[in-house]
Amino acid sequence: MSTLTNHQVRLAARPVGTATRANWSTTTEAVAQPAEGGVLVKTLALSLDPAMRGWMNEGKSYIAPVGIGEVMRAGGIGKVIASRNPKFAAGDIVSAALGVQEYLLIAQGDIPRSGLAKIDLALGSLTQWLNVLGMPGMTGYFGLMDVGLPKAGETVVVSGAAGAVGQTVGQLAKIKGCHVVGIAGGKAKCDWVVQELGFDACIDYKAGDVKAGLKEHCPRGVDIYFDNVGGDILDAVLARLARGARIVICGAISQYNNTGAVQGPKNYLSLLVNRARMQGIVVFDYADRYPLAVAELAGYLKDGRMKSKEDVVTGLDTFPEALTRLFTGQNFGKLVLQVAED
Amino acid sequence: MSTLTNHQVRLAARPVGTATRANWSTTTEAVAQPAEGGVLVKTLALSLDPAMRGWMNEGKSYIAPVGIGEVMRAGGIGKVIASRNPKFAAGDIVSAALGVQEYLLIAQGDIPRSGLAKIDLALGSLTQWLNVLGMPGMTGYFGLMDVGLPKAGETVVVSGAAGAVGQTVGQLAKIKGCHVVGIAGGKAKCDWVVQELGFDACIDYKAGDVKAGLKEHCPRGVDIYFDNVGGDILDAVLARLARGARIVICGAISQYNNTGAVQGPKNYLSLLVNRARMQGIVVFDYADRYPLAVAELAGYLKDGRMKSKEDVVTGLDTFPEALTRLFTGQNFGKLVLQVAED
Repeated sequence: MSTLTNHQVRLAARPVGTATRANWSTTTEAVAQPAEGGVLVKTLALSLDPAMRGWMNEGKSYIAPVGIGEVMRAGGIGKVIASRNPKFAAGDIVSAALGVQEYLLIAQGDIPRSGLAKIDLALGSLTQWLNVLGMPGMTGYFGLMDVGLPKAGETVVVSGAAGAVGQTVGQLAKIKGCHVVGIAGGKAKCDWVVQELGFDACIDYKAGDVKAGLKEHCPRGVDIYFDNVGGDILDAVLARLARGARIVICGAISQYNNTGAVQGPKNYLSLLVNRARMQGIVVFDYADRYPLAVAELAGYLKDGRMKSKEDVVTGLDTFPEALTRLFTGQNFGKLVLQVAED
Repeated sequence: MSTLTNHQVRLAARPVGTATRANWSTTTEAVAQPAEGGVLVKTLALSLDPAMRGWMNEGKSYIAPVGIGEVMRAGGIGKVIASRNPKFAAGDIVSAALGVQEYLLIAQGDIPRSGLAKIDLALGSLTQWLNVLGMPGMTGYFGLMDVGLPKAGETVVVSGAAGAVGQTVGQLAKIKGCHVVGIAGGKAKCDWVVQELGFDACIDYKAGDVKAGLKEHCPRGVDIYFDNVGGDILDAVLARLARGARIVICGAISQYNNTGAVQGPKNYLSLLVNRARMQGIVVFDYADRYPLAVAELAGYLKDGRMKSKEDVVTGLDTFPEALTRLFTGQNFGKLVLQVAED
């Protein structure tokens, strides 16, 4: 094998507000071959997620921030191109925390931390493994099932409905017999969510009054709210809670680029009035049950009860601009950065 | 029996911000005798609670607002002075939703709604029946036990620590083996909470930095926060949550006199980072289990493991000024309005 060159995207400076190209640097390195027990993976596709914005900030969170000068953290799908580990062979398709780069050499001792695992393309396509069968799908599955605790006939509202997590949450809630109302930005996303994914309704927050939409589509109140956005929409839903409601706090994309304080939910006392709860979820806590969720969701993909949509952007160099699409709402479906064809 | 005159305090106008005497009117009425099945109760003492401020506002809450011109709602302890109901006899000491007035005539059909029930002064004093053994005690008991779910060794923080709910919560948490930190206003309250009630520490929010106090006294983070106050203190505790923390939303006394929007907790994303939850409680939901909680708490009062403090103000006419003491923090212990000696 001739010497390979690894192109990488590194965090150059912590952003204030929206990240720009100035926050990134690109580097190239020669790729070394694996030592005994190690594996060399070529990146095929990376998952671009709102959480990445948080990883760029300093300070304690559910995961350590990416250090200045480090390769940007990213989960992805790759192909093993060299292995000195008996559990992996050249040609295996794997998922791992690959980072925003073309190659990742994983030493034997780093395998557990990298999350390196073979994936089965019979269960879903490569991009579906970054969507329904990947972190967003797992987040939606465990957030809805373990924190939301859906019962048939209940009303479930999900924001970011056309996004990676939202599409899984809404379709899964429909499969569980719930009345499902999405919130998304723009007619195209709302139409897709209702017509293709089978949500009962979708409120276009860019077109009008979310409160009025909630009143119309949730006449008995909201039993479960799966929140990906925070801000004014969280407050609007708080004002429509049903008795005993559960709010799953998955993210707050409306707040991630704030330069000031996060907007706290001024209607939080609705939790008291309605004996409701608001609970956060971090997907990593459920890692030991991923295989069960993947099996269930892959079944729904196979029998057509669940669909998925990925928005694929091509080329490692486009990473900085591709990431900002998440925060402007330009992406339509799970945002994937394709780094190599195979 | 000669004709009795009932002095009453009625809601005259909804307050904007802090309630003043102008929000109240006083009326007098002749007291009628009970019809078949009815009971006439003389008010001895009334419970003054922060929740009263909410009942004065228009709009949907966990309970209907008090109407303009209606006698102000209040729970209290009274003495049956005439009864045509076989379950109650003259001389019985009872608790009921008496209202801010000297007498309440309860028709047979209204007995369930009034909550009329005999109380046993062998279990606790009359004022303790408005405190540990009454609504505040029940609120603290079920909020801590059913929503907070304390485990021995966990760190419990309670705001309004010297107040009616707070004193029960903190002492009960100590009995359950927790490390208990109160938050209260002023040295006298803080000293009492630590020296008399046995809290491990108490942070004086008027004296200094609540954040620093939490850092000092909750080195492993906060597992349970029982919130009576909302506002900046809620945000300070959110910033110190332990993994898997539970926040019991009981009230938000810092916000009840706001003329603008409620201050939302800007640190609410700590719920996500720490997989924590925030849940509201309304005590009425636990009515069928009050007797069990009363029996347990009365046992602690009897064996000295629990103490109580009531702040008794005298005279029906002082109601308007007495109520405002809750919001300025002038009360020290459960605020009780004594209306008659016996």
